[in-house]
Amino acid sequence: MKIGVFDSGVGGLTVLHALLDAIPQADYLYLGDTARLPYGSKSATTIARYAVSSVHFLLEQGAEYLVIACNTASALAMNDICAAVSTEVLGVIEPGARAASALSHSKNVCVIGTAATVGSHAYQRALAKLGVNAYEKACPLFVPLVEEGWTEHPVTEQVARIYLEELAREQCSNGNGKADVLVLGCTHYPLLKPLLHRVLPPDMQLVDSAQATAHDVAQHLGLAANTRRREPNIRFFATDSVDKFRLLGSRFLRREIAKVELITLPE
Amino acid sequence: MKIGVFDSGVGGLTVLHALLDAIPQADYLYLGDTARLPYGSKSATTIARYAVSSVHFLLEQGAEYLVIACNTASALAMNDICAAVSTEVLGVIEPGARAASALSHSKNVCVIGTAATVGSHAYQRALAKLGVNAYEKACPLFVPLVEEGWTEHPVTEQVARIYLEELAREQCSNGNGKADVLVLGCTHYPLLKPLLHRVLPPDMQLVDSAQATAHDVAQHLGLAANTRRREPNIRFFATDSVDKFRLLGSRFLRREIAKVELITLPE
Repeated sequence: MKIGVFDSGVGGLTVLHALLDAIPQADYLYLGDTARLPYGSKSATTIARYAVSSVHFLLEQGAEYLVIACNTASALAMNDICAAVSTEVLGVIEPGARAASALSHSKNVCVIGTAATVGSHAYQRALAKLGVNAYEKACPLFVPLVEEGWTEHPVTEQVARIYLEELAREQCSNGNGKADVLVLGCTHYPLLKPLLHRVLPPDMQLVDSAQATAHDVAQHLGLAANTRRREPNIRFFATDSVDKFRLLGSRFLRREIAKVELITLPE
Repeated sequence: MKIGVFDSGVGGLTVLHALLDAIPQADYLYLGDTARLPYGSKSATTIARYAVSSVHFLLEQGAEYLVIACNTASALAMNDICAAVSTEVLGVIEPGARAASALSHSKNVCVIGTAATVGSHAYQRALAKLGVNAYEKACPLFVPLVEEGWTEHPVTEQVARIYLEELAREQCSNGNGKADVLVLGCTHYPLLKPLLHRVLPPDMQLVDSAQATAHDVAQHLGLAANTRRREPNIRFFATDSVDKFRLLGSRFLRREIAKVELITLPE
């Protein structure tokens, strides 16, 4: 089984990390559309065009199952991607929403993500279908702070407190009740987990969409993690800056990336 | 005279603002390649390809003089742009370097910018030709902080202190001497001027590449600012997110932007 994993950049490597844990017996193709990142600040039409050309490349390379490891593309381009391919496709939104719904007692959850993901209200819709109310908040500084390597920095902690206080104020002014789960609706955010645990109230649980997605892929494919026969074969592709991808990506994947192949995608 | 102004996004509007002050009698075309921003984290080859397709569009629209109001494109794509067009082209690096050299007594200046601008050492080369030593520092968090609207925020002040202290330490460990000028080598940074003035030593002078560039364009064209006959005619083009361009851009231009035309550029 060859699984194609797509993201605008290196963030989706947190999803690939979780997939390698959950399904070590598969082979992987990972594409980061680094020439055109970030998707988080672009329009739905543009994001859909970029995402469709990216998944076509993964299919040409032999992908038999597609994981859209990018919250923004999952939120805004899922319909276009599904219409453009006949392969099975899973995004990160539905798995994250399902995991949050299963964990939440109050049926109120908070979701943080990029401006585009939050503006799309894709998590809110997915959670509403499960009877869960969502408080959403865009945290545009988290991605640059993670990319600067400041995952344990006092500045990042201060920024996190400001964003989370705004979320808390919104809950107070709303009649629905207090959230007990926070969904990390951006693939960069798992690197902030230790810091967020310090800043959040102790009874607030975190949902990592990367882990939730890997769990759902394993279920869909009927594969369990207990059959590691060999090191998975992984190929990495990027549309720009392969050296930066290699250096930054190794932090997200939590293993060294030896080689990244540079490709060009049609506009 | 119709002047074409190009940037990857809204940052170049600080250059357009300075141009409107210096040459109000010209007409302007402004293109923000917002679908493909930010350029600051991309490779030289990709930036050159994007920049050349962007200036071709401005020439098709009737531009008679081109201003590359983007430090990254000026640093990395100037040769490609000049080779691709026969029109006169001015970037922001040379004017900024000339202004810094004229102001500096110690002939040591600091330059801050994006990772790509600093990594290109374009300011260092331009300043070396003028007999000036440069200390360069990438400040990747400044652009997202400005775009978040936190131009007077304590978090931004803390980030600025951290970046500028690193620059100061570099000067101490270097034999060349202390800098007395700081070049704002990114078009987003003029919005941080009041904050930077508070954080910098009082004897450190700021060079705003936007103003330096507008001054040089007026000189090249032999135009003085004393002949305002009418409101300049300005057309704005963007390759994505025209609403975001309008809202965010008005802060950079310091006047309201009524209409932005959405265009598509060839890859």
